[in-house]
Amino acid sequence: MRRFKILFAFVAVACFYGFAQQALWSGAALKSPELRADRSAVFRLYAPEADSVSVSCDFLFEFVNSNRPQYTEKMEKDSTGVWTYTTPPMLVPELYSYSFLVDGVKTLDPSNVFVNRDVATLSNYFIVKGGRGDLYSVNDVPHGTVSRVWYYSKSLNMNRRMTVYTPAGYENGDSVYPVLYLLHGMGGDEEAWISLGRTAQILDNLIAQGKAEPMIVVMPNGNVSQEAAPGETPGRIDQPVFNLPKTMDGGMERSFLDIVEFVERTYRVDKSKSGRAIAGLSMGGFHSLHISKLYPDMFGYVGLFSAAIFPSDAPNGDTASDVYADMEGRLKVQFANPPELYWIGIGKDDFLYKANTEYRGMLDRIGAKYTYYETGEGHIWRNWRIYLSEFASLLFR
Amino acid sequence: MRRFKILFAFVAVACFYGFAQQALWSGAALKSPELRADRSAVFRLYAPEADSVSVSCDFLFEFVNSNRPQYTEKMEKDSTGVWTYTTPPMLVPELYSYSFLVDGVKTLDPSNVFVNRDVATLSNYFIVKGGRGDLYSVNDVPHGTVSRVWYYSKSLNMNRRMTVYTPAGYENGDSVYPVLYLLHGMGGDEEAWISLGRTAQILDNLIAQGKAEPMIVVMPNGNVSQEAAPGETPGRIDQPVFNLPKTMDGGMERSFLDIVEFVERTYRVDKSKSGRAIAGLSMGGFHSLHISKLYPDMFGYVGLFSAAIFPSDAPNGDTASDVYADMEGRLKVQFANPPELYWIGIGKDDFLYKANTEYRGMLDRIGAKYTYYETGEGHIWRNWRIYLSEFASLLFR
Repeated sequence: MRRFKILFAFVAVACFYGFAQQALWSGAALKSPELRADRSAVFRLYAPEADSVSVSCDFLFEFVNSNRPQYTEKMEKDSTGVWTYTTPPMLVPELYSYSFLVDGVKTLDPSNVFVNRDVATLSNYFIVKGGRGDLYSVNDVPHGTVSRVWYYSKSLNMNRRMTVYTPAGYENGDSVYPVLYLLHGMGGDEEAWISLGRTAQILDNLIAQGKAEPMIVVMPNGNVSQEAAPGETPGRIDQPVFNLPKTMDGGMERSFLDIVEFVERTYRVDKSKSGRAIAGLSMGGFHSLHISKLYPDMFGYVGLFSAAIFPSDAPNGDTASDVYADMEGRLKVQFANPPELYWIGIGKDDFLYKANTEYRGMLDRIGAKYTYYETGEGHIWRNWRIYLSEFASLLFR
Repeated sequence: MRRFKILFAFVAVACFYGFAQQALWSGAALKSPELRADRSAVFRLYAPEADSVSVSCDFLFEFVNSNRPQYTEKMEKDSTGVWTYTTPPMLVPELYSYSFLVDGVKTLDPSNVFVNRDVATLSNYFIVKGGRGDLYSVNDVPHGTVSRVWYYSKSLNMNRRMTVYTPAGYENGDSVYPVLYLLHGMGGDEEAWISLGRTAQILDNLIAQGKAEPMIVVMPNGNVSQEAAPGETPGRIDQPVFNLPKTMDGGMERSFLDIVEFVERTYRVDKSKSGRAIAGLSMGGFHSLHISKLYPDMFGYVGLFSAAIFPSDAPNGDTASDVYADMEGRLKVQFANPPELYWIGIGKDDFLYKANTEYRGMLDRIGAKYTYYETGEGHIWRNWRIYLSEFASLLFR
């Protein structure tokens, strides 16, 4: 039997080829990123043939004033062919993304399997613990269930995919839960909020801390021209693209009742206005604005995160769609019986900042009450995770 | 409003930087892989500074005799800095994996976002349609739900994560379903079968074709030292490793009842022996063998896929564990009231082939009936997808 043991160990290494290979090249498996006690991070890549290697990143530091959402830092090669970059200390606790550029070729870090996709770009990520970093981490708290579920959209005559978070305890109880419908931006899909947005971790942690009510979060696909995320679409394995057709032409708003109908038929949910919230980022904020206005008695809570506001704000905006007609008049109808919370969050550097300022002017003019939350930076996931964390803690209380 | 439109388009490109960058470099977005009508595939990478680029792959061809589960092919550079490799025609319909080596650095294809993780190695994948390729594809058929669910294991005093497939119709009916418990190999976790194994696609397609009964598939984590897959484990973001402790020491077998108890309490399932199946690959086959023998009245169907057999077959095997004691005697007990199907699948080149031959001898000696399914190749996911497809179609009928 001993011979099998030896063979098994051999094949173990062979199966592990990609990893083992790097270890063989560099003399030892590289640790990258290495997070140090002073909250600096060390990045390492074995690339002895390369002429230049840099790290493309989005880091923030407590004591370094950077206003650079995305930038690159050069790495230095040592005599063993390992390139290294060490950040300054005191990274702000956060989830960070990065990749390497090796002689101009974008390369993921072979020492780090944790990868997120943003539209068609894969990046590595890591979390610096503490503060918001803890909120985005998997902690030893009760965990909700995350499901990929298909439903039939009658309006679109399409089977479509959504991601659903049900809070810890859902499976083994009989309570009904309120629902947050959480919508992605242009180029995103039903995977965006659960991966880049850390929705499950944020909700698990807020609920465990008593800072949010247990709720179901429904993350549908907001691109009415597609059934599902790339790779999950029947018959096609297209790569993701940013500018899909029909994303802001009224189709998402009109077909939204199919989603609500499916959710309320399938899950144990509170079917009242005060049990429904809708929020979204960028295009999803646009959808949230116009859906909540189209069905003014449906949502007790509305969240606009770095939202596009007017159809003309968007490359695919259909200014002629009657879904968007008489915006001010319809807002008056919505606010005649107002939602319990109408929440607007945006960063100072966002290209949609001015549109949001103009929109707040419109709301002020008609006497509509809203909560305004302004942050630094712009149209980035870091802000959207913050907005979700803030908004979720205000719901259903 | 026009200014916002222009700004939005600009930021759209900026957000899309990784992708747009490649397009700018190479003059046009590269298509890679490009699948051609003759079933060849073209791989492209823009890397003008590189001295050598190759593709590491696992391709099979109808008319090329290759016995190479993993091999590399050199790519050629053109005057624009784009490296290209074109395969021979007539790729066998299959799911294939590949990555690039750029001057020795393993690099994912920046034109292909579809990536699988095998232990600590990320690879791109694509599917050649037809035959098994269709079975592994998302098709326009009813889709089951895939959930990541946490349960409490009393034996291990740990909250643990599993992946659960419920067939189409589960949410909106009241039928009970049989359950297949499907176990991963060493270095794997609760993500392995659903990603590399294409479990959801295989089951969706077999069920839609009437070739498999609607069933629930439960994919637990078989490493009793960990709560969940890397990145999903509370408090830790360790990179995956192959050789975790306590994987074959009897702990998985002993704690398995916690999984069955949770599933039978949480889902609408057939709780009889003829409604339960267990199968696994490599270490998971080992677990299936010993679990079904430890609880001889529990499983009506048992599948061993390239299974490790004896504790001494494994680096972590605990030959002293009483779970593995008196193997032949306990098999006699199990086969006194035999499962409806005891299925053994293995490839001719598998390093565990001899152990499986020896084991079949043991089964023959005690008069135990089993079904034997032999394929080419060895200890690879291609075989495990085949075994799942074959085994699932024999269950619960």
